[in-house]
Amino acid sequence: MMEIKVLTLFPNFFDSFKETSIIKRALDKESVQFTAINFRDYTLDKHNNVDDTICGGGAGMLLACQPIVDALKANTKANSKVVMLSPQGKKMTQKLVRELAEHDDIVLLCGHYEGFDERIRDYVDEEVSIGDFVLTGGEPAALVLSDAIIRLRDGVIRSDSHEDDSFENGLLEYPQYTRPVEYDGKKVPDVLMSGHHENIRKWRLKESLRKTYLRRPDLLDGRTFTSEEQKLLQEVMDEENKKQTSNDENQ
Amino acid sequence: MMEIKVLTLFPNFFDSFKETSIIKRALDKESVQFTAINFRDYTLDKHNNVDDTICGGGAGMLLACQPIVDALKANTKANSKVVMLSPQGKKMTQKLVRELAEHDDIVLLCGHYEGFDERIRDYVDEEVSIGDFVLTGGEPAALVLSDAIIRLRDGVIRSDSHEDDSFENGLLEYPQYTRPVEYDGKKVPDVLMSGHHENIRKWRLKESLRKTYLRRPDLLDGRTFTSEEQKLLQEVMDEENKKQTSNDENQ
Repeated sequence: MMEIKVLTLFPNFFDSFKETSIIKRALDKESVQFTAINFRDYTLDKHNNVDDTICGGGAGMLLACQPIVDALKANTKANSKVVMLSPQGKKMTQKLVRELAEHDDIVLLCGHYEGFDERIRDYVDEEVSIGDFVLTGGEPAALVLSDAIIRLRDGVIRSDSHEDDSFENGLLEYPQYTRPVEYDGKKVPDVLMSGHHENIRKWRLKESLRKTYLRRPDLLDGRTFTSEEQKLLQEVMDEENKKQTSNDENQ
Repeated sequence: MMEIKVLTLFPNFFDSFKETSIIKRALDKESVQFTAINFRDYTLDKHNNVDDTICGGGAGMLLACQPIVDALKANTKANSKVVMLSPQGKKMTQKLVRELAEHDDIVLLCGHYEGFDERIRDYVDEEVSIGDFVLTGGEPAALVLSDAIIRLRDGVIRSDSHEDDSFENGLLEYPQYTRPVEYDGKKVPDVLMSGHHENIRKWRLKESLRKTYLRRPDLLDGRTFTSEEQKLLQEVMDEENKKQTSNDENQ
């Protein structure tokens, strides 16, 4: 059993997440437990405040040490992994998701206002950022990280399904089609309707390489290729260069 | 007025998002309208299905052209920007958020199961990925993108506040502190309690550079520096190299 606890000023933010679709199925199966806890419940301030002005001046308020650290102490065990969601953190990748999914007790800390008092970082195991953009708080990021982790834990998805997904094998997914064979003048590629399994496999691998080459060449940089992949990638590059040249000539 | 429409199989996923905090305030002010629409409402299939098996074989189901394209046609206007959330898309950055926030009508398309029939991409203006990780569907990504866009529209946050945030100026934020001056043996840096505004400004700029240098050197690569920033960055690098050397000697 895995437990994810989110410490937040807005525990209700996660209500719909818990009630929807694939995540709900996982929670119903009790393979994962997911709780949102308000760190305001831990403040010792007589006005129930959790924030205060910034030392040295500046707009906005900062989450103070006492309520956050006390909430952490009350909700962590020896084996807990404490993760702060923050734009300053390590970039979230599928590799990081897999690492975190190994833990049985994860505590996620969501910032708000101008952020956390810097000293709170001393009580955190890992700082994670979901990307280089600014959100209203840590909650959307915690939701995304929880979704990715819960998805990986047993029973949420079929194992034959997530093998193929983008980033699990380091390539973007090949184009996929369903019926009808023709829609709005656009046809499913013939090879996919041929029933010839080996040709289909090869076409998919090649188109997967093509999509990655055209859209995310950075993913190809660090990757090791089989000799088949190498040959197909060369074909893709030749074809795309030729296309580029003929486009240039037509202009 | 801005309108965001999310086309999804799980419109209830967004209920709590609309009801929480900063986003609720924006929606209450009517500066932004946010609606979640079920594309199942547009299927012409007699069993109400929106998905079908994959041409050429493979595990799972694919979202079919008819319900998705018809839902798009019914919910877009001439000025709509149609964005598909997909792991194959352009990486979401604050720059992309700023560009999208210029539009008054945004339609977000959330995938599920194994994804979309490839031909649906012809009806989409932009494909966006929030990062290199795998989610249960497009909904968490659409929530993150909506949060970032709504945040930028008038009236959601004070303008003096988001100027300082990470990624708005290309650097990570400097360490911030609130009272008490001492917590659990950890003190607020003296300079921040000095009341000397110029020293505080300089300290913050330097520590912002230090955090970026230590955690996200990639952000410094393409950036232009003022001469003051250049000088402070050099100091940071000298200090950190010295620290590194003395650590090595002590081992």
